[in-house]
Parts: sequence; structure tokens; C-alpha cells
Amino acid sequence: MASEYKTRTGDDFDRDQFESLLRRKVFMWPSFEPYGATKGLFDYGPPLENLEAEVMNVWRDHFIRHERMMALKCSMLTPYRVLETSGHVAKFADYMCKDPLTGDILRADHLIKDVIESRLKSDREARGEKVSAVEEDPKLKKKKSKVTKTAVKLDDAVRKEYEHLLATLDDCTGDDMGALIKKHDIRSPISGNEVEPPVSVNLMFQTQIGATGKEPAFLRPETAQGQFLSFQKLLEYSDGQLPMASASIGYSFPNELSPRNGLLRVREFLMAEVEHFVDPESGKKHPKFASVRHVKLPLLDRKTQTEGGSTPTVTTIGEAVDSKLVDNETLGYFLVRIMTFMQRIGMDMNKLRFRQHMANEMAHYATDCWDCELLNSHGWIECVGCADRSAYDLMVHEKATGTFMKVREDLKEPYEVEEWQANLDKKKSGPKLRKDQSKVEAALNELSQEMKEKLSITMADKGKVELPVSEMEGGKVELDKDIVTFVKEKRKVTQREYTPNVIEPSFGVGRILYSLMEHVYWTRKGDEARSVMSFKPTVAPIKVLVVPLQKDTRFATLLSELEGRLDDAQLSFKVDQSGVSIGRRYARNDELGIPFGITVDYESLEGKGFTLRDRDSTKQVRASLDEILEAVEKMCKGKETWEGVSGRLPVFEGKVEEEGKEE
Amino acid sequence: MASEYKTRTGDDFDRDQFESLLRRKVFMWPSFEPYGATKGLFDYGPPLENLEAEVMNVWRDHFIRHERMMALKCSMLTPYRVLETSGHVAKFADYMCKDPLTGDILRADHLIKDVIESRLKSDREARGEKVSAVEEDPKLKKKKSKVTKTAVKLDDAVRKEYEHLLATLDDCTGDDMGALIKKHDIRSPISGNEVEPPVSVNLMFQTQIGATGKEPAFLRPETAQGQFLSFQKLLEYSDGQLPMASASIGYSFPNELSPRNGLLRVREFLMAEVEHFVDPESGKKHPKFASVRHVKLPLLDRKTQTEGGSTPTVTTIGEAVDSKLVDNETLGYFLVRIMTFMQRIGMDMNKLRFRQHMANEMAHYATDCWDCELLNSHGWIECVGCADRSAYDLMVHEKATGTFMKVREDLKEPYEVEEWQANLDKKKSGPKLRKDQSKVEAALNELSQEMKEKLSITMADKGKVELPVSEMEGGKVELDKDIVTFVKEKRKVTQREYTPNVIEPSFGVGRILYSLMEHVYWTRKGDEARSVMSFKPTVAPIKVLVVPLQKDTRFATLLSELEGRLDDAQLSFKVDQSGVSIGRRYARNDELGIPFGITVDYESLEGKGFTLRDRDSTKQVRASLDEILEAVEKMCKGKETWEGVSGRLPVFEGKVEEEGKEE
Repeated sequence: MASEYKTRTGDDFDRDQFESLLRRKVFMWPSFEPYGATKGLFDYGPPLENLEAEVMNVWRDHFIRHERMMALKCSMLTPYRVLETSGHVAKFADYMCKDPLTGDILRADHLIKDVIESRLKSDREARGEKVSAVEEDPKLKKKKSKVTKTAVKLDDAVRKEYEHLLATLDDCTGDDMGALIKKHDIRSPISGNEVEPPVSVNLMFQTQIGATGKEPAFLRPETAQGQFLSFQKLLEYSDGQLPMASASIGYSFPNELSPRNGLLRVREFLMAEVEHFVDPESGKKHPKFASVRHVKLPLLDRKTQTEGGSTPTVTTIGEAVDSKLVDNETLGYFLVRIMTFMQRIGMDMNKLRFRQHMANEMAHYATDCWDCELLNSHGWIECVGCADRSAYDLMVHEKATGTFMKVREDLKEPYEVEEWQANLDKKKSGPKLRKDQSKVEAALNELSQEMKEKLSITMADKGKVELPVSEMEGGKVELDKDIVTFVKEKRKVTQREYTPNVIEPSFGVGRILYSLMEHVYWTRKGDEARSVMSFKPTVAPIKVLVVPLQKDTRFATLLSELEGRLDDAQLSFKVDQSGVSIGRRYARNDELGIPFGITVDYESLEGKGFTLRDRDSTKQVRASLDEILEAVEKMCKGKETWEGVSGRLPVFEGKVEEEGKEE
Repeated sequence: MASEYKTRTGDDFDRDQFESLLRRKVFMWPSFEPYGATKGLFDYGPPLENLEAEVMNVWRDHFIRHERMMALKCSMLTPYRVLETSGHVAKFADYMCKDPLTGDILRADHLIKDVIESRLKSDREARGEKVSAVEEDPKLKKKKSKVTKTAVKLDDAVRKEYEHLLATLDDCTGDDMGALIKKHDIRSPISGNEVEPPVSVNLMFQTQIGATGKEPAFLRPETAQGQFLSFQKLLEYSDGQLPMASASIGYSFPNELSPRNGLLRVREFLMAEVEHFVDPESGKKHPKFASVRHVKLPLLDRKTQTEGGSTPTVTTIGEAVDSKLVDNETLGYFLVRIMTFMQRIGMDMNKLRFRQHMANEMAHYATDCWDCELLNSHGWIECVGCADRSAYDLMVHEKATGTFMKVREDLKEPYEVEEWQANLDKKKSGPKLRKDQSKVEAALNELSQEMKEKLSITMADKGKVELPVSEMEGGKVELDKDIVTFVKEKRKVTQREYTPNVIEPSFGVGRILYSLMEHVYWTRKGDEARSVMSFKPTVAPIKVLVVPLQKDTRFATLLSELEGRLDDAQLSFKVDQSGVSIGRRYARNDELGIPFGITVDYESLEGKGFTLRDRDSTKQVRASLDEILEAVEKMCKGKETWEGVSGRLPVFEGKVEEEGKEE
């Protein structure tokens, strides 16, 4: 399948060949295959599991350790009420259409998009235009026998309407989509049947805690809520000082209606989320911003997108924040850190951009949001969201639970205010109000300054006021002037209370790993069957390949010594002792992305050292075991490069790789 | 609360004080506290989250890298059918009793145990015996007003009966427990009400995948099933060679009826499970067993337990395997590796033993099992199970799905066998059997040798046979001698097919972390309020505490240089600049378990280096920053000890710790 997406060496990316490699080398596969596989769930085999561990160790180092964030682990099982408060019960939903005859469930926006795109494609074919391959659901491929495949030319007006429809689909409500389905006679591409109107379906997995049936719960849709509910502990640990940040690496579970595109849309996935708490009145400055001001980023802003553009502007983050293109320093600092993280794990920087969310696109809690998007063969994919969630979550949880979730700050310069006070004379009010005393007190406290002033006038005028108390029978109470008085008093303010704002970089680990695998994949020039996964040594799943020149028992002792030394150095390795040529052994292990190969040959037996081979260049050096291990250790820690090593150790010109090319 | 459990320095362990430290330093807390906390769910704060990450990195290094295991990540959401096959739908259950008046759910065995233990305690009080504190459910403490607390003396016979009952409770069926509840008038200790008879409740969290309602699923109760279903991929990755082992670090979810004892019985927990696949006919030898033969382990075998003993025998694993005390080399090898892992993360080796499971105690799939138990203030707790699961899981999944889950091995010496064959003449049978042809063929293939021989005699006798074919109408078919013939034929056998056996070390990470925290906890002699968490530098959550002598702006530049150097060395650190005395700052950070402290003082400003303080001994050395950083790096990698460092760097005699003692 041809694609406009290119490999790192500029060749066409062949997704079939790439996916075949992932299967063959057991990077990943659909979970529960013997039971028919479950959509949207994947297992990671040894190469991908180890890659994830390495990448997450870099993440921990880059964010948690370097930024001195507070690492948190919160529960995945989450009580109903928590997610009701956060808004997820109401809003974490998609519209679906049911095929009444087959029972199939189709996500409404996907249904419309698939059908309209396929009509446009068919139109282009009928017009004789070049048609690039469109992503197809394998389920569709299998079942779509009932759907006609003849190329049909559309009226120019219809074509225009369809194109506009696709561009504005994200803005549609459920009713809008229902109208579109009717108007354009959109049917199930699987069965050809008409579908029922879209209904909203919550996308969380529901379950029960315990056996009583009294504790309904969900699997969390994001790790953030647990972090917000830990706010008090975090503040305690930070000695009450802001800004502070928590970080959590954990799983989230969206019950997708139609999972697709492998790791890009799944039902269970690892996230790494940072919640950075700032004083909203601080201007959201970041103490380390000066150190990154000069860093250039590719920014695709809202304005460019509105005008139909898709080319990011490359600018320093300093300029971007100064010009308010990026709202504040903290957001800007994190964009830079996200980019340097991607660089550190080996992402192709030509396939990375930051895209600002359109106003209608943001989550229900966000006030501004930039996505770090990575280009892969499925298009530009959101891999990190960097949102300003404002004070939304802390405020709703405080309101729902009565738990104090603000910061108290001593004022440097205390000041006086003159304020209206409502003073209840409890000795007199007690016998009269009885059990309603505290309700009345609370209602008085909640009165605005304006209202208190107004009531003071009524009181002076009539000697009594009527106070609304929603919790009392009748909803109000009459209070005489001997029970309550309204006076204007001076008060010294020494503390400030505020709800922090939250800036949240949120990483989808599966999407990052998938993009990384595509970014490091390429094929050797002149031998396109030889695929290479060029993982950086720092994150490569296995660091060293050990290959004895051929099957020969004389190598046994030396091999076992070498293995012991690699083990002592805590380097992961694989030994390939199979009978095939050394070139072929290197070739098939290049597919696993092992960066370095150590060959044990007859000269090694004579104490003349070993050869060390670099995966990407296939160049080799020859040196003593000590020198080789030192070089490999340094390269795997990112402290030296192959260029450095091949510059200081004697180059070895072998015939080895030629053997590889023969195959 | 006094306890017989001692700290590492031999003092009484004060659990209240310990738990207060865990709360105060935000190691952990019940999840969703603002919503009233959910039982059996805990959040980890920065110290514990970082500890877990460090401990799991050691685990990965100790098992996955060193043993070259295949790391796997499988899905938590698991289709109903998978766990039906594995036996979990039927057998992963507990008995519960419902209080019909309050709706409370009580786990039957806990209910009986709690009530009987409380009667025995009351009896001891009545007899004037010393009563040690018994673990109590906090829920009980709050609500138990309705239950009488007067000490009641029991008849000697009843006392004996109760003691016997407690000792044999684990063997009881649901009906047995129902009878006990009736006989001894056991009522809810919360309400004092009679309870309903015990009913079996499945302990898995159930949910639905997708919106169709056609995909019921559970959250997995163990990570093992995903590993078994990946068997073919693992075998492919291992080039078909056994023994091979997979390893998975992931979450499991038991929906406990009455979670208790903090991290020891929870509803969501991290496991690390190894599945080691061996040829059952290999004697379960392990290639590296010779290297561990000499290692001594404390083994508490089945026989000693039956005789009422609880003292383990310390013996080398070589002797234990030779004498069949431990069944085989592979099991023995893993017991050693488990112990060295515990040593490596800093567990107290005097609080570790291996206990063999009693026959009635093993899981439904196990044929032998040793637990690594750690002693903490709750008693001896199973933290690692090391079970021989035989071929059970692979066989049931193969049967349920028809997926081949065996190993094919080329025989070194092929041999001939003479076997009865049933040959169907398809040309003749086709027109007669039509659509049933394949069913008949399958039925013939499944006949035993004995049956084929028997049918051959009938055929020779009567010229036709009647063949049972359960899938055909009527359940059988008559076959003439021109359609099928039974002949004895010689066949060369070149391959062997077998289902591997599985040995499974399974680690409960939360229990290990909790035990570790208790093991490293102690208080300074003469100042019991000063608690210390002596985490090994290799796993300590934070490595370095930086303390400027006092608040003084002149330290700023040096501090920032020091921070930069620590960051470059990838050492996590905390700066304590608060105004309190340096001794107090050390004392309160000893509670976080930070192993090393660097003091910045006025001599540092004069270029005379820094002092480095050891948490456990409170001893200090003074040296240049380069020397100090090198020493800290080495100690944090486990390559040097404080003894080594204080031997080679000049000792510093400060007044610092005395200040600490003053408080």
C-alpha cells in the first residue's frame, strides 16, 4: 500500500511490510487471539514491552526527577460520584447509531465520515483523479460485499457540500448528525441497512465495588481526577508552596464504540499526566522559563487553521509567549519540555508539531490547549495534550464534598476593608429559631455585600427583614431587628485564599510508542526487504547482539565469559547462535532494533579482541573486551555516540555485511 | 499499641506511630478521601510511588534482564469466556453472609473468626490472663456500641472447641460455615443481628466491552491468563526452545468482600508474575541450578506444619532438592532468586521464610507451592507465591479454543510404532455421507487404539460397523467394509508433542512494599520520637537532602551550582531551606528515608568543600564536591558502602546532630 508518508530515509512507507515486521518480531498483537481477539485491546511482546519501560524511565527522569514533580499513584477504580462531579458521567460520551436489523453499533461521526469519504473517493475515481489509499476498517473490508463499489460521479454542488460537511463534522450535535444521516441517506456500510437516529452513550466502563450493589464505580477515563482529590496531600508535601506539580503514570479506560488504527484508539491505555498547580494571579510565570526562551518550536496556531492553513510557524517560545501566541510562560515551558522529551527518545523532529485547539474542540474543562502532534502513516496524531484546565476541577470537587481545596497565602502587606456584616444575636435568636439556627446563620453568611446593604436599609425602614433560607420550610424566615443587625465594619485582611489553576501536559504512551516505531523504521538502500528499527541506544529494547562467527564448540568458554561481563554491566543482550550466515543474523536482529553487535571470531580466541558493529551504519571497530564494553555502556547511557567511538577505536573492515546483502 | 513484632533495632514496633509517619509524610492514604474514602483502594504519594518505581526497576533487572525473560504486557480487561475456561468464573469466589436488616455484607470466614476470637479474648480477660491487642476493623470500632464488652468466661470444653474451630476454619465449605454460624449463634458484630446463611460470591469486577451488551468481561484477577494465551508468540520468539519464561508486571483486581490491613488486602494491586515453561519430562532441571546449590534458605515444610511446628529448617537448596523437600531444580532456583531479590531491595532477612502450602490450601490449578512469607506487624504474610501450575491452563485453553498450545520437538532418535489406522475411502464415502463426511472422519480419528482394534474384529465378522458420531442426527452411522477399513500399520515417529508445565513465581508488590517499609523503620535510641526509614540507597525514593546551614542569601549561588551538579548526575534531591535547626531538618527528612545529606556551610563558601552525612549512623565526612558526588553516585548504584566512603574521606566532627537531639 503506497502512502504519502515517508520513512526517515525518504522512501515510501509500506505499512503492510511494517505491520508484518511488528507481528513477526512479536512487538504486539490483538489481545486474546485464541478467543477471537477483542477489538481495541493489544498485548505487547518483549520488544515493545521493554521499549515502553525504557521510554517511561526517560519520562520519569525528564519530568519527575528533573522537574522535582511529586509522583503519585491513584486508583483506577473510581466511585460513581467522583466522575459525576467531574462531568464525565454527563459529558464523556459519543453518539452511536444502531443497525436495527444486525444489532451493529456504529459511532455516528465515524459512520458519516466513512460513507461521505467513500462517496468522494468514488467521485474522484469517476473523474479519473488519482486516488490515494484511504484507511479502512478491516471489519468493513470483510463484510462490505453488500455495498456497491462502482465509481459514481457527484454533482459539483454535492461534492462541495460533502467537503464542507467533513470539515464541520466535529462541531455537530447528535441531532445535527441525525439530520445529516437522513438528508444524505447514510446507511451502515456493513449491511447497507438504514440506522436508528444517534443516541448518546457514555464511554466509561461501569462496574460495582464490593457485593452490596451500593457502590457503583467506573474505570477512570483519565488519571487526573485522582490527582485533584490528592490536592491537600500535595500541598502538605510542598509545605504549602506554589507552583507545585504532581505526575502520575497509569492506565485509563475509554470504552470506545469503534476502536481503530491499532494503538491509536484503544480501550485500555497507559497515560502520563502532569498537573501543574499555579496561582492564577501570578501571570502563570515559570521560574525556569528564561532557560528555554531561545528554543524554537513549530507552532500551528488557531488563526492559521481557521484560514485553512496547516503549515506551522517556527518561532522561539520566548517570542511566542511575548506575543501571546502561547498564553503564558508555564504553558510555553511545558511545550519545550515535551519537545525535548520527544527528541531524547529518538522521535523524528521533522514529524512533530504543536497545534492549538480550536475553540469548539476543547474538553469541557479546558480554557486553552496545545497538542503535540506526531506525523505517522495515519496522519498527524495527537500524542500529548497540553491544556489549561483553569480552576474547574478543584472547584467542583470542593463544592460537591465540602473539602477545602484552596491555597491560603499570607499577604506581604495586610490591608483593611470596610464590609457589611450580618450579626446574629444568638441568645435571642436561639429560643426562636431552634433547630433552624444554623441554617439561618449560613444563609446570612452567604449574602452578598450588595444584599446585606439592601437588607440594612429595609431593617432601618421596617424594623424587620425577610431572609430567603432555601433549606427551611417555606423557604424563608422573618427576622426582627433585635435578632439581627447589619453594620458596616472595618476588617484587617492578612491572608488570601484562592483556587489554583492547573496546567496539564497529558501523554498518551501507546500513541507515542507507535509513532516512535514508525519514525525509526527504514529499509536498507538497494535491499528493501531488509528492514531496520533504529531505536536510540538509550531506549532500545535490547542493547547488544552477540554472534559467534559460526557454530563451533571452541567459542563456548569465551561466549560464557562475554555473557558474564555483559550481565555485570547490566546490559541486556541476545545471543544468536543459529547456523545461518552472520550477515543474515545481523539483518534479522536489525528488525528488533538492537543497536550494537559483538562478533566472536577465531581471532577473539587468540586474545585479539572482538568486533563491535553499529546497526545503522553497519560499520565495525575491533578492540579489547574492556574497550568495547566501556564504549557500549557509554553509548547506552547517551554519553557517547558511534561517531565518537569509531573515531577513537580502530575500524574493522570485514566481509560480514556483504554476506548479509547476498540474501 | 504494643506488639510482639520488633523493629530492626530490636525495639517494640509501635504501629500507631509508624502509620502516623506514613500519613504525615504522605507515603499513602485511602483513595477518594474527600468522597469518604473507598475501602481496599489506596493512593501512593511521592515517597511510596518513587519507592515502587525503584523496587520494580530492581525486579526488572533481577528477573527480566538477568534471566533473559520475555517481558509481556497483556490487557486487564478480559472477556468472560477466557476466565470461564480458566476456572475463575466458577472458583474465584468467597462466601459471604448478608445482614438482612442493615444490608451489610460480611465475609463468612472473617465473621466467624472475628466473633470467636473476640469471645476467646473476653474469656482470657475473665480469667485474668494477659491480652495482647488484636487487629480490629475500624468500621467495627466505630459501630460496635450495640455489642456487649463485658468479659465472659467460657467452659473449658467450649474454649477447646473454639480453638479447634479457628485452626480448621480454612478447610470449611460454605455449608460447614453455615452450620457453625447456627451452632455458635454467631451474629454480625456491627449490628448484633442474625445473618443469612453463607452464599458464594464471585470476586471479580464485571463490566461490558463496547455498547452492544454482547461482550461481558472482567477485570483480570491475575496477569497469568494473558501470558498463557500468548504462548504461541512466546514460543516463536524463543525459536521453539524450552525452557523459556515470560514475565509481566501489571495490575489485578480482586473485588474483596471485606478489605482489611491496609496494603495487605486490597481491590486493585500491582503484581509481577513469571511463567516459566518447562518440559514435564525434563525432570524440571534448571541450567543455572549449580550456581545456587550452596545457598541456604529457611524452609518451613508441610510436615513440620502438620505437626504444629512453625520453625523453618535452614538448609542449602542443593540438599533440599536432593532430598525432594523442594520438588525440583527450577522451583529451587526460583526460591533462591526470590530471596536474593528481597536482599537486594533491603528486606530484613530475619523476617523472611519459605512456607510450603498444605495440600488443601493450594489454588485449583497448582500441584505444589512454596510461599515467600515476610514477617510484619500483621504476622507472617504471603508476599510471593511460587507454584507449579502443571499443564492445566494451556490444556484448558487449547481445549476451549482449538488453538494448538503444545511444543513440537524433533526426536533425536526417531522410532517406529505399530498402530491401528481407520482409513476412509473418500471416493466411495463422499456420495453416501455428503455433508457428514468430515464429522465421520473426525470421529474415526478420535477412536482409541483399543476401539479401532475392536471395530476391525466386528468388521471382519459382519462386514459393517456402527460408529458413534455425536454431531450427526441419530448420534451414529453405519459404515460398510468398502467405505472404511481398519488396518494395523507401522509408522515412523520423528516428533514429540507435549504441553509444557508452568512454574510461576508471583509477586504481590503492595505487600512487599508495605513489609519493606516496616522492615526499614526504627527509632533513634534515647529519642523514640525520632523515626528513621533506612531505605537502601539503591531504592530510596529521594537520594540526597541539601541543607544550607541557615537562611542566608550568600548561599544562593553555591546552592544553585550544587543543584545543577546533582541534576547532571541524575540524582534525585530535596532542598530543605526552612528556618529550623539543621538537626531538626535532618531528623524530619530521616522519616522520608533520604540516605545522604549535603550541608552547605560558610566553609563551603570559602571553597573548603561540603559535608556529607549518612542517615543511619549520622556520621559525616568533609570533601570536595567532586568527591562527594562520586561517592553518592557509587553508593546509590550499590557499588560502594558508607563504610568504604567514611574510610577513605576525612571524617567531619560537627555539632550538628546534637542540635537535632535537643528537640
